[in-house]
Amino acid sequence: MAADVAAGLIQASLRGVDSHGVRLFPHYLRALKAGRINPDPTYRFEHTAPAVGRLDGDHTFGHAAGAEGMRRAMELARQAGLGTVAVYNSSHFGAAAYFALMAAERDMIGFSFTHGDSLILTAGGRRPFFGANTICFAAPCEGEEPFCVDMATSLVTWNKILQFQDQSKFIPFGWGVDEQGNDTQDAQRVAALHPAGGYKGYALSMMVEVLCSLLTGMPFGRHIIRMYADPLEKKRQLGHFFMAFRIDSFISLEEFKLRMRQMKDEVRAEPPKDPLVPIQVPGDPEQRVAQQRTKDGIPLSQAEFEALSRISTECKLAWAGSFT
Amino acid sequence: MAADVAAGLIQASLRGVDSHGVRLFPHYLRALKAGRINPDPTYRFEHTAPAVGRLDGDHTFGHAAGAEGMRRAMELARQAGLGTVAVYNSSHFGAAAYFALMAAERDMIGFSFTHGDSLILTAGGRRPFFGANTICFAAPCEGEEPFCVDMATSLVTWNKILQFQDQSKFIPFGWGVDEQGNDTQDAQRVAALHPAGGYKGYALSMMVEVLCSLLTGMPFGRHIIRMYADPLEKKRQLGHFFMAFRIDSFISLEEFKLRMRQMKDEVRAEPPKDPLVPIQVPGDPEQRVAQQRTKDGIPLSQAEFEALSRISTECKLAWAGSFT
Repeated sequence: MAADVAAGLIQASLRGVDSHGVRLFPHYLRALKAGRINPDPTYRFEHTAPAVGRLDGDHTFGHAAGAEGMRRAMELARQAGLGTVAVYNSSHFGAAAYFALMAAERDMIGFSFTHGDSLILTAGGRRPFFGANTICFAAPCEGEEPFCVDMATSLVTWNKILQFQDQSKFIPFGWGVDEQGNDTQDAQRVAALHPAGGYKGYALSMMVEVLCSLLTGMPFGRHIIRMYADPLEKKRQLGHFFMAFRIDSFISLEEFKLRMRQMKDEVRAEPPKDPLVPIQVPGDPEQRVAQQRTKDGIPLSQAEFEALSRISTECKLAWAGSFT
Repeated sequence: MAADVAAGLIQASLRGVDSHGVRLFPHYLRALKAGRINPDPTYRFEHTAPAVGRLDGDHTFGHAAGAEGMRRAMELARQAGLGTVAVYNSSHFGAAAYFALMAAERDMIGFSFTHGDSLILTAGGRRPFFGANTICFAAPCEGEEPFCVDMATSLVTWNKILQFQDQSKFIPFGWGVDEQGNDTQDAQRVAALHPAGGYKGYALSMMVEVLCSLLTGMPFGRHIIRMYADPLEKKRQLGHFFMAFRIDSFISLEEFKLRMRQMKDEVRAEPPKDPLVPIQVPGDPEQRVAQQRTKDGIPLSQAEFEALSRISTECKLAWAGSFT
């Protein structure tokens, strides 16, 4: 279980997704100590139909319950061609890519979805109802890392707003709104994020809520316990939704992976807007950062470094981190 | 077969999705006469795994091949909890909602995806590679029409650009680009559409291409035969991807539908930005138009009316249309 939490956080940090990386570890430990997270879960899996299962995460780390859910989905897919698992009684699972990539690295297609607490502005509304609910899709590719789309349904992440807050900078118009639902460029006053593509992001967010709340039996929208603003004793009762597709049930795996590579290469060879900035496909930026950070390490802010150092002292665990 | 084409076109027009409604009928007939569309297909269905099937559409109308695909997916879902069908050798299938709603009206969740010819600007590029590939999701709701998200991955539809062209109006900044990939507000010069949410719409479009091209074996991106610009003799070789979920494999159907209704009603009751404009959930605008048009009829432009009248004369079929 700890292995999935560690692997999920480190993978996110290596891929440059710092918002969902090792900086969350101190928060998770606090949630563990406060009783939100169950460190010793008893998973209950029901195989309800050849291609469907339900997994009770018993309020453990979302990374762990999610990984168990995706493993089960892949098992189902081996038999049924496609497997889907609805996970309930879970918690924050970090970056969705961790789970979809589990499938892609085993030559399957993976989908992972999660909901979160209210964060994106409702279309036509003044405040958020749905979270920046996440859609993630990964598929294997010949000779290189899997294709991977991992997107929140907000235009920018909340973490991006925090970065602008730290630097006391104005945010571009169209990223967020204040408490009254009015557009603001003052990062300190952002109370909700604009959905990606206006009402389209709002619609996608509600679609993800159907999968993660209605199909799992977990709370939706404004009923969801907030990650930070609610007491850490409260269990979050999050739901996730995973799908795995066995590619050779559709087409030859070899042909699929070769054509994936061909498609990626053709897109990268398209005429760029700026001749000096080559075109990338989804997943390319993360893979580039991962190559660099695997060599050079994960950069930490001073606050992150100190928080991790305190934990290592408390737990009497040596670690090799250094603040640069 | 003709029944699915007619029902699909009329449903789209009734729901106010005029771009995909009866105005397409004359084009489809021309494609039929020219040989692009096969009026007498032999479907070939392979049941490759408990939850997976492949359907050869034999180059018939996309509406017909798509409906057959979704019917097969629902059959698989009855047994396996979830069913998915990859359709190949198909053609333009109209509005994606037709298929997802088939599932929702039978108390299942439906997903329908299709690709199309190059239309959205590649992120960082000067021209389109992927189409405004469509994502559609529908789910049943207690006491009212199903929840339905049906979205192209472009910010606005091509039809919207055509409307501005007809009216010689300028389009808002950020909708489209010219031949060189530069933003333009001149509707006449739009050569590609901006994806919804910038690179996020581009990423979703590529995700849909993986499902509809790579899993079906059909051409992708710039290799796809164009709906209008290529000779009508050329078969389009489009792929579609359908999924149906049996809800009671996840949770009680009754509970699902009641909570769907509760969620929709809570969102509609959120504080609106403009007190006079109530908040809507995805599918509400289409249902409102459908109620009105079921009563009052489908409005046609003079050109559309004349085209349909010519067809009725040629085919010696009486029709009750009138141009108002």
